[in-house]
Amino acid sequence: MGTTAPLRSYVSGAWQAPPDEGVPLLDAVTGEQVARLSATGVDRAAALEYGRRVGGPALRELTFHQRALLLKQLAAHLRGHREELYALSARTGATLADSKIDVDGGLGVLFSYASKGRRELPNDTVLVDGDVEPLGKGGTFVGRHLCTPLRGVAVQINAFNFPVWGPLEKFAPAFLAGMPSLVKPAPQTAYLTARLIELIIESRILPEGTLQLLCGEPGDLLDHLTEQDLVAFTGSAATARLLRTHPVITGRAVRFNAEADSLNCSILGPDATPGTAEFDLFVKQLVSEMTVKAGQKCTAIRRALVPADRIDEVAEAVRERLGRVTVGNPANPDVRMGALATLEQREEVRRGVKALADAGRIIFGDPEHVEVVDADAERGAFLSPLLLRADDPERAEPHEVEAFGPVSTLLPYRDADHAVELAARGRGSLAGSVVSADPGFVRHVVLGAASSHGRLLVLNAEDAGESTGHGSPLPMLVHGGPGRAGGGEELGGIRGVLHHMQRTAVQAGPSMLSALTGRWVPGAPRTETDVHPFRKYLEDLRVGDTVVAGPRVVSLEDIEHFAEFTGDTFYAHMDEEAARRNPFFGGRVAHGYLVVSFAAGLFVSPEPGPVLANYGLENLRFLAPTFPGDELTVTLTAKQITPREGADYGEVRWDTEVARQDGVVVARYDVLTLVAKRPEGKEA
Amino acid sequence: MGTTAPLRSYVSGAWQAPPDEGVPLLDAVTGEQVARLSATGVDRAAALEYGRRVGGPALRELTFHQRALLLKQLAAHLRGHREELYALSARTGATLADSKIDVDGGLGVLFSYASKGRRELPNDTVLVDGDVEPLGKGGTFVGRHLCTPLRGVAVQINAFNFPVWGPLEKFAPAFLAGMPSLVKPAPQTAYLTARLIELIIESRILPEGTLQLLCGEPGDLLDHLTEQDLVAFTGSAATARLLRTHPVITGRAVRFNAEADSLNCSILGPDATPGTAEFDLFVKQLVSEMTVKAGQKCTAIRRALVPADRIDEVAEAVRERLGRVTVGNPANPDVRMGALATLEQREEVRRGVKALADAGRIIFGDPEHVEVVDADAERGAFLSPLLLRADDPERAEPHEVEAFGPVSTLLPYRDADHAVELAARGRGSLAGSVVSADPGFVRHVVLGAASSHGRLLVLNAEDAGESTGHGSPLPMLVHGGPGRAGGGEELGGIRGVLHHMQRTAVQAGPSMLSALTGRWVPGAPRTETDVHPFRKYLEDLRVGDTVVAGPRVVSLEDIEHFAEFTGDTFYAHMDEEAARRNPFFGGRVAHGYLVVSFAAGLFVSPEPGPVLANYGLENLRFLAPTFPGDELTVTLTAKQITPREGADYGEVRWDTEVARQDGVVVARYDVLTLVAKRPEGKEA
Repeated sequence: MGTTAPLRSYVSGAWQAPPDEGVPLLDAVTGEQVARLSATGVDRAAALEYGRRVGGPALRELTFHQRALLLKQLAAHLRGHREELYALSARTGATLADSKIDVDGGLGVLFSYASKGRRELPNDTVLVDGDVEPLGKGGTFVGRHLCTPLRGVAVQINAFNFPVWGPLEKFAPAFLAGMPSLVKPAPQTAYLTARLIELIIESRILPEGTLQLLCGEPGDLLDHLTEQDLVAFTGSAATARLLRTHPVITGRAVRFNAEADSLNCSILGPDATPGTAEFDLFVKQLVSEMTVKAGQKCTAIRRALVPADRIDEVAEAVRERLGRVTVGNPANPDVRMGALATLEQREEVRRGVKALADAGRIIFGDPEHVEVVDADAERGAFLSPLLLRADDPERAEPHEVEAFGPVSTLLPYRDADHAVELAARGRGSLAGSVVSADPGFVRHVVLGAASSHGRLLVLNAEDAGESTGHGSPLPMLVHGGPGRAGGGEELGGIRGVLHHMQRTAVQAGPSMLSALTGRWVPGAPRTETDVHPFRKYLEDLRVGDTVVAGPRVVSLEDIEHFAEFTGDTFYAHMDEEAARRNPFFGGRVAHGYLVVSFAAGLFVSPEPGPVLANYGLENLRFLAPTFPGDELTVTLTAKQITPREGADYGEVRWDTEVARQDGVVVARYDVLTLVAKRPEGKEA
Repeated sequence: MGTTAPLRSYVSGAWQAPPDEGVPLLDAVTGEQVARLSATGVDRAAALEYGRRVGGPALRELTFHQRALLLKQLAAHLRGHREELYALSARTGATLADSKIDVDGGLGVLFSYASKGRRELPNDTVLVDGDVEPLGKGGTFVGRHLCTPLRGVAVQINAFNFPVWGPLEKFAPAFLAGMPSLVKPAPQTAYLTARLIELIIESRILPEGTLQLLCGEPGDLLDHLTEQDLVAFTGSAATARLLRTHPVITGRAVRFNAEADSLNCSILGPDATPGTAEFDLFVKQLVSEMTVKAGQKCTAIRRALVPADRIDEVAEAVRERLGRVTVGNPANPDVRMGALATLEQREEVRRGVKALADAGRIIFGDPEHVEVVDADAERGAFLSPLLLRADDPERAEPHEVEAFGPVSTLLPYRDADHAVELAARGRGSLAGSVVSADPGFVRHVVLGAASSHGRLLVLNAEDAGESTGHGSPLPMLVHGGPGRAGGGEELGGIRGVLHHMQRTAVQAGPSMLSALTGRWVPGAPRTETDVHPFRKYLEDLRVGDTVVAGPRVVSLEDIEHFAEFTGDTFYAHMDEEAARRNPFFGGRVAHGYLVVSFAAGLFVSPEPGPVLANYGLENLRFLAPTFPGDELTVTLTAKQITPREGADYGEVRWDTEVARQDGVVVARYDVLTLVAKRPEGKEA
């Protein structure tokens, strides 16, 4: 990375260097120049169009599993470059522990989506959402929801505080959905994001056009958005508001997701008296949230709510612990807290603290002075951790003023209802935590505060050992919150993928819907062939392939024998009189387990062949009784065929229906099997 | 309903009559005054606060099933007043068929949510979304998503064209979610909505404060919104844009859902030559969409896309059919198409037609003249159906100008790609249709057009008999579309309920998460008591109640016997050598069905008792092989207890784990049972 040439953008298939010098980006610790930044010369409209024209189609060619495997490959590739990223991250003021949260956290998102994509999405380009909905009584008109990727570009506007995790947490779900990304890093730490993207582009793992980088200001970028693009923003509430009202975003109803820093709270339960594990956990977590990333986290604890009669003890314990925090050059392993990202950011935080101090008082730290290790306290953006105490929790400032640094305010609450009320005064938060082992208090507070929170952590001795803490978003859980927190939602596993897709209700006849979705739909034709479908390799099997087997009589002797053999002598199978009194049976009936066992005996194909295993059943319902003497017929139809990437088999789901001689269906379920792909050289 | 006093609002627990005279609302057919409208004097801030303070808490006390039952009761009540609503609806210009779409359609939404609420939601106040997510390797830290109702008011701003269906389709999902509604009808047809709400309030079925009515202009309503309120709007794209940029909506990130009229298209497939069922269906549907509600539907077909070489034949067939449409007084049973809602609306449509005619020509109808039956063509807002033809489909007007009346434009397309491209020129549509029996063409067009459509109907001979047509939103399918259509989503079954709730990721230890959600979570304590849990009535059973049963040896003789008895002689059970070659088993194994049958034999409690039936299994996975000689133990734990409203039993879901002597779990599944409530007078 050059320290004099301005950062390049990667747009429209090429690295573009700005023609001018740009402005300097400074090392947060030393004040030296790290890089320069300019966005002159980039044709933003062309970049968007390139993503739509080149990236989108390339991505949409791939199945979800193929995209997921590319994410996995990418994560493995980047893992090999962690040291370089840590080193660059240190220049943003981050300690090694901070850098790991950013870098390893980002890789964790890639790995998580790689894994969920293959486990929870089909190996297909079309995503079916929800069940088939019958729309007519005759069964000839049905509906189902399809999700398809938006045919535009996901414009991702990132915050400065997580220059690796931030871009990756937005990119991974977009990519998995089939939507190309255009990443705009925040200026302050753009050099780290730029290097990340450079590593990705150099690897040539991703199809061209699926990831672009725009260094510098957005300029006229948003003017060129269409209804099929989307904007995912992380940053301040003020900027979120500004972007949300952009005339193109409102005029074209462009999807806009905001994740804004919020006034998150942590609540100490009344049960957590000094000496309890929970009291210590609360104090420890509060100090950690204040100092990790020097408190520059959208999710950090800004308001620490404690029972009014315990505020002195909490204040003392937090001050004691804060006193042990070493501030300074993050390269020094003794340093616990590094610098803020920039000197401007420090000024901003000082202004916030001044406003907060109007409603309370500073009980730890001095906004104007801090002892630092191995660094110059004025050239670097260093700031002391600052703890405030506001004895009147009804004052507005603690609930409205955010100082985006190592700053938190202690506030007293009266009772659980008051705690819920104060939590909601944040007017929407990304994260909150309740530190308590009392289920009653926890339930009251969590259910009361849930509607104003995107995430709530319950911390106590039970989960402390493994808890990832108040401030850490996780890829499988939603990230985002209502109101002040931006009103958006990201991540949350596959939910985050769906944010990049359009859900469309499709109405059709069952055979057309099967053809459209590649999944057999009840009412669509069943194809009975001479060959038992269990004798077909995965490639030869077609959705709709069917075997009808039976009938087999279920005799009273069968039922009694099965009862004796298995030990399941439930009265409904054994005692005519008692069974008659049961509201659902009206007499002795066969065991449900007997019905499915006999069904398997009917549809099985015993000799070794392509079907390797029956690995499960789903949605089994016993719909009507099977009485002694009934004859059962089973109909098995291939419903969904999922080849597994990089394996010599795949999954086949079979619609299974067991019916009596009178046509009444007694059981319906999906049989799940593993079926071999055709071995090389073997004929169809 | 008075015809001189202005319509009253129902706010803050009382009917409020405006102090002034207001403006007249005119009969669309006769031009006579039907009602007067004014919104003077209503304290909108107080109404919102009343909903939050009185309606919200009352609703949140009820479970989803209880709310669903109230919706059902309400639908049944309103059904008794249909004739009155039809009569009032005729004054909006609607024929009886049109009125049934509005009124019966609205009741259909209530019934649908009443039914889905009980089938798909728990009988609880908390909704769990998705599975438990393991967050740590040790199992002591887990996550799950909860959905809780927003603690504000759902402000519902309705369009004039469906004065019954419109308010009900917004109200039903909000109510089911637990959020009070404030209904603002469109001025033109406010008298019908006002009467509807009056019928509802008079019935006293709903808890007070859960439904309010604001007749007249919104005034300062939006200024008083908070982060916990939401706005659901249906109407023009221009108004949607205006509301979306309201400073309170953007500033507080208030959830805003828009459903705007769009330039929907219907596409005739190349296979649908004259003489085919599909050709006739296309023509018939186009004429129906033009004339139902006099074309005043957000979902109506504005653009009819036909193969270029077939445009003459289509034009001729549509004109012929339009020629048979009788326009006039909707009270006359011979009349097929009534009036537009107002004279102003007619002027608006005429302006649109003029703009459209710049890009094509009118080939049926005269915007300035129409023959009417039983009415005065000038005093009533009558307009002829108007068919246009634009031979250059690339012109902007047909894709941009909406004439919200009985107006449609025929456009030629070259091939499937061109049809997709033209469909997308609408820049986002609520609905589209493809009329074709060719699966290849349908798949190409549907998958190509899906990302710009909220709903797509495939119409052909297979589904025509039961199809509800291009223009009809259905409660179980999403309604809304991207871009021009507003970028929103309503209905879609439970999806529409979730729009009124906040999704919150909750992280905790398993026992705390169980306590919070009322559902047993793996890792939470299992309670083994002296009494077999199958001997407990529903009220006595607790989440976590557990029975551990076994061990039982599975011998080779058992396997061979089961194979012979059921007929399931799959080689993996019968042939050691062949089984060893199977990649998953490594030797002969017991049948999965034998494992679950033996498990049932172990956990069953044979004598008559509270457990009435095992009605199904879910998520069964065979996780490891059971070899001859293995000993199986089964652990069954009550996971979720769902009392059924108005029945003497409920559903209990049991977490079931079958493990080998070495602790390896061989099968995991949920057993679903029906369990009796304690009979009256019986002791616990």
